[in-house]
Amino acid sequence: MTVKSMNDLFLHTLKDIYYAEKQIYKNLPKMAKSAQSEELRQAFEQHHDETEQQIERLEAVFEHCGATPRSIRCEAMDGILAEAKDVMQEIEDRQVHDAGMLAAAQTVEHYEIARYGTLIAWADQLGMKGASKLLRETLEEEKRTDELLSRLAKEKINQKAA
Amino acid sequence: MTVKSMNDLFLHTLKDIYYAEKQIYKNLPKMAKSAQSEELRQAFEQHHDETEQQIERLEAVFEHCGATPRSIRCEAMDGILAEAKDVMQEIEDRQVHDAGMLAAAQTVEHYEIARYGTLIAWADQLGMKGASKLLRETLEEEKRTDELLSRLAKEKINQKAA
Repeated sequence: MTVKSMNDLFLHTLKDIYYAEKQIYKNLPKMAKSAQSEELRQAFEQHHDETEQQIERLEAVFEHCGATPRSIRCEAMDGILAEAKDVMQEIEDRQVHDAGMLAAAQTVEHYEIARYGTLIAWADQLGMKGASKLLRETLEEEKRTDELLSRLAKEKINQKAA
Repeated sequence: MTVKSMNDLFLHTLKDIYYAEKQIYKNLPKMAKSAQSEELRQAFEQHHDETEQQIERLEAVFEHCGATPRSIRCEAMDGILAEAKDVMQEIEDRQVHDAGMLAAAQTVEHYEIARYGTLIAWADQLGMKGASKLLRETLEEEKRTDELLSRLAKEKINQKAA
């Protein structure tokens, strides 16, 4: 980590979330495939499409910074996805599995909500209006995904699992 | 992981957040010590005291379940705290360091917000009123801490670091 200024820190964290989004993009089809509930599968598939756009938006933010898109390993997302994988592989009951997977997906969303919130505050502080606007679009999508998952959990998935 | 029912999944996730809270409790004094900003140091110290109570509340929830408090390794929190450690050790500029530390603390808070939100929904579904009430108290504290950090970032820390 060669971070000497706020600009460096912004770029470092951009690389962190770029890695995270690419890992999420890679893992969502497996999560969708493992879902018993049709609604949960659809939610994961829809978020897979959104994630593709979010990756493109991050690439546009790199461009705003005059930087080439690069990843650095995000240990947080690796840990979060390792827990999701445990749920996928180790819970046999399909309804209980879905409740666990949905919960794991919400830890993914909340990591992203924290990171995008931070990046927006830094972009605003650094006067990077174009970057801030792009990051806000993604933050709103992540919040909507989290709300959709909360609703799905309460109205369907948890009832079936209990 | 021996999860066959929603009760098992609840208890499994309780052990995950119990581990996470204990790791946070262990790390917060180091984070406070490394903060340059007096307000950020105080925020970490205050949250250290809250975390102690949150651990006690989790022990009360274990009791509600008729279970002995136990931890299981939470890979997500290990990853999140590893990233915080990198910031602590590798950013020399003290103002930029504080901005990075504050951001890392917000990823901690958001993991907890996701987990407590899930545990409350499951406790409600399982009819565990006492557990739900305790978990809600902690969730509100975590949300307040996250809001305090957002405010502190925007009003002080980011301005100094930029």
